[in-house]
Amino acid sequence: MTTSEIITIGTEIILGQITDSNTPYIANILTEKGIRVQFQTSVGDDKELLKSALKVAAERADLIIITGGLGPTANDVTREALSDFFGVSLVLDEESYTHIQKIVESRHRKVTDADKKQAMVPEGAIVVSNTHGTAAGFAFRHGNAEFVCLPGVPGEMRSMLQTYLETRATSKAGEDCSLTRTIHTFGISERAVEDAVGDCNEQARVMTLVHDGVVSVSILATAPTGEGAAKILDAVEQNARQKLGHAVFGTGDETLESAVALLLKKHNKTIAVAESCTGGLVSDKLTNIPGISEFFLEGVVAYSNRAKSSILGVPEELITKHGAVSREVARAMAEGIQKRSAANVGIGTTGIAGPGGATKDKPVGLVYVAVVSDGAFEVKELRLRGARIDIKRFSAHCALNMARLSLTQVRQP
Amino acid sequence: MTTSEIITIGTEIILGQITDSNTPYIANILTEKGIRVQFQTSVGDDKELLKSALKVAAERADLIIITGGLGPTANDVTREALSDFFGVSLVLDEESYTHIQKIVESRHRKVTDADKKQAMVPEGAIVVSNTHGTAAGFAFRHGNAEFVCLPGVPGEMRSMLQTYLETRATSKAGEDCSLTRTIHTFGISERAVEDAVGDCNEQARVMTLVHDGVVSVSILATAPTGEGAAKILDAVEQNARQKLGHAVFGTGDETLESAVALLLKKHNKTIAVAESCTGGLVSDKLTNIPGISEFFLEGVVAYSNRAKSSILGVPEELITKHGAVSREVARAMAEGIQKRSAANVGIGTTGIAGPGGATKDKPVGLVYVAVVSDGAFEVKELRLRGARIDIKRFSAHCALNMARLSLTQVRQP
Repeated sequence: MTTSEIITIGTEIILGQITDSNTPYIANILTEKGIRVQFQTSVGDDKELLKSALKVAAERADLIIITGGLGPTANDVTREALSDFFGVSLVLDEESYTHIQKIVESRHRKVTDADKKQAMVPEGAIVVSNTHGTAAGFAFRHGNAEFVCLPGVPGEMRSMLQTYLETRATSKAGEDCSLTRTIHTFGISERAVEDAVGDCNEQARVMTLVHDGVVSVSILATAPTGEGAAKILDAVEQNARQKLGHAVFGTGDETLESAVALLLKKHNKTIAVAESCTGGLVSDKLTNIPGISEFFLEGVVAYSNRAKSSILGVPEELITKHGAVSREVARAMAEGIQKRSAANVGIGTTGIAGPGGATKDKPVGLVYVAVVSDGAFEVKELRLRGARIDIKRFSAHCALNMARLSLTQVRQP
Repeated sequence: MTTSEIITIGTEIILGQITDSNTPYIANILTEKGIRVQFQTSVGDDKELLKSALKVAAERADLIIITGGLGPTANDVTREALSDFFGVSLVLDEESYTHIQKIVESRHRKVTDADKKQAMVPEGAIVVSNTHGTAAGFAFRHGNAEFVCLPGVPGEMRSMLQTYLETRATSKAGEDCSLTRTIHTFGISERAVEDAVGDCNEQARVMTLVHDGVVSVSILATAPTGEGAAKILDAVEQNARQKLGHAVFGTGDETLESAVALLLKKHNKTIAVAESCTGGLVSDKLTNIPGISEFFLEGVVAYSNRAKSSILGVPEELITKHGAVSREVARAMAEGIQKRSAANVGIGTTGIAGPGGATKDKPVGLVYVAVVSDGAFEVKELRLRGARIDIKRFSAHCALNMARLSLTQVRQP
């Protein structure tokens, strides 16, 4: 199996000022193509450190994907570092230069030496054209390793990487092919998910991951052909779905909110949301889904008791008697927003996200989530730990999951 | 200057399934402490690959911070890999074990061997206690390098790292000390920010970064002492603030929402939010701030025209005449929520986040943001590009920034 290393270059990454989104993107693509990512390295815009990182990578990987530091500024030293490391000169690629001239002139600017620098590539390299920007990329074979160097701008890098990998044989002849698939669940423990998919382990490697209550399980299947690997994945997924039932809400890019949106569309139902402790996060997540405006009617963030009463019609006596953080108020909020919006499904959340606001009986992390749907209702009590944001996130996921289950007509135990 | 490398361990990182948020966090902390981060490496839960990464790191860094793979499952191999690499055995740390027993028993579960594994550390290591969870961390000196190994759970790792670094001398005698500071601005172009801080470049390195409309500038100052570096930072910050004026909203961890929260508290004012295209994101951001419940009264996500009229009192004729996405409706939404909640400040957002919903006159990315505050009001028209989520995020930032400026009694040009 081809092994690979991803190297990202940028002082802002090394200082921790930005999160590097290129590496996970590239890792995903390589894994999908059956290339095994073994190491990810980041280094600043520093020629000597970069050269030392290249040396290490050349010794341990077949394919090395490098991004960043190809721009026009003096800080961008990737071209020089690579040509130094390969022991060749930088030469002008005429085609890239013409492309740069066109772009620069369309911006009513004169072409400078800094612009020209972006068309320089190590002598003997294969040029990877940049249709979305100015900096040319390139590929170069050095020793036993294949180096592919691309700009750090995600929109440019992504299409260049795709193009390059399409033209390249992705696995060595006679080698196995690996594919992955991820299945997402909610409302079930990591242990239970592991147990349910554990016996697939002979054919495939299985790994679980927990994120704000979502337990995801990734399956890595290896077979002599891509079709063979896909078949294994299908079988493992079918088995997992059978065992995990309605806890499974999607695969790959799917989220709880996209699953809810899909069900709303399928059954032609509408939804409305009344939030206290989740503070708008449930509405925010739902409204991230394109086309949701047909099904999402309204949301209310009723932080104050006054808002709970005046907008949602929660009786003041109910709040006085049970407290704003109570099973009864969560239900009344869900019913209130459902009634006032005439939606099919109503969500209500109330709780103590902390760090303040706890009382003797009601600790930080106590949350009630209610979902009403066509006459039926369900309220869940959660006792969560963690920071304010963690409590918001888990509660929002729980609310979305309850809405999802109510839309599949399934009651949780 | 002490050099360092950050190693994160996890197959889900190496496959690109999650974005590693620990590395930027650690890089930031180390840089603030005057430790130079040179390399960041990620590797899967694989003992042999991890050992080879440790070997590389030991040769090129003084301080190596390792996170991940310390949990109870069979996939967690970090303890074994490190003790192997150091050439010592794993031994039980009694204090950590007692701590684990307490936590496990409080969850009404029996302590298993898998739990116990989390109290094992390489013989001779300094234990770094985990007050937020079960997995013990440790520090170990091997050759010329200092290894610090912590769990990958961010909440646990962060406090353990802070504790460890506080007890440790941060720079070698006789060496220069580097410090960084980041200043955040909104409503001003990256070029303008660069120009304003450009002449500080002699004493300090300056770098800009744009994120959802926030233009941040990072300053890296180096001096023989920490006090000297801090003095340079103070001077550069003062100069930048003078030139950039009210565009500056904070430094370091501060966000637009935390700046708004601070001003609400300072002036004892309240706020309420009416959102259409931002879909709850403004409320969500504000309610991420601890203690906001005193100042944030309520939020409404009025996606449908009916909700705009019935909850916010936007006249139906206004929507018919100008359309839901209009200057007039944005203002009426802000006024409506201010009136119904009796808040000092009201925010209204309406726009077309896309990908659908565009008309001939109103393209995707057309957004109106209104802020009313004690009788005065302001409406901004935005013409944004990008995906649905990008449009939501930029619009939410713009709304928060307008609220911030209204609270500092400053009108934008």
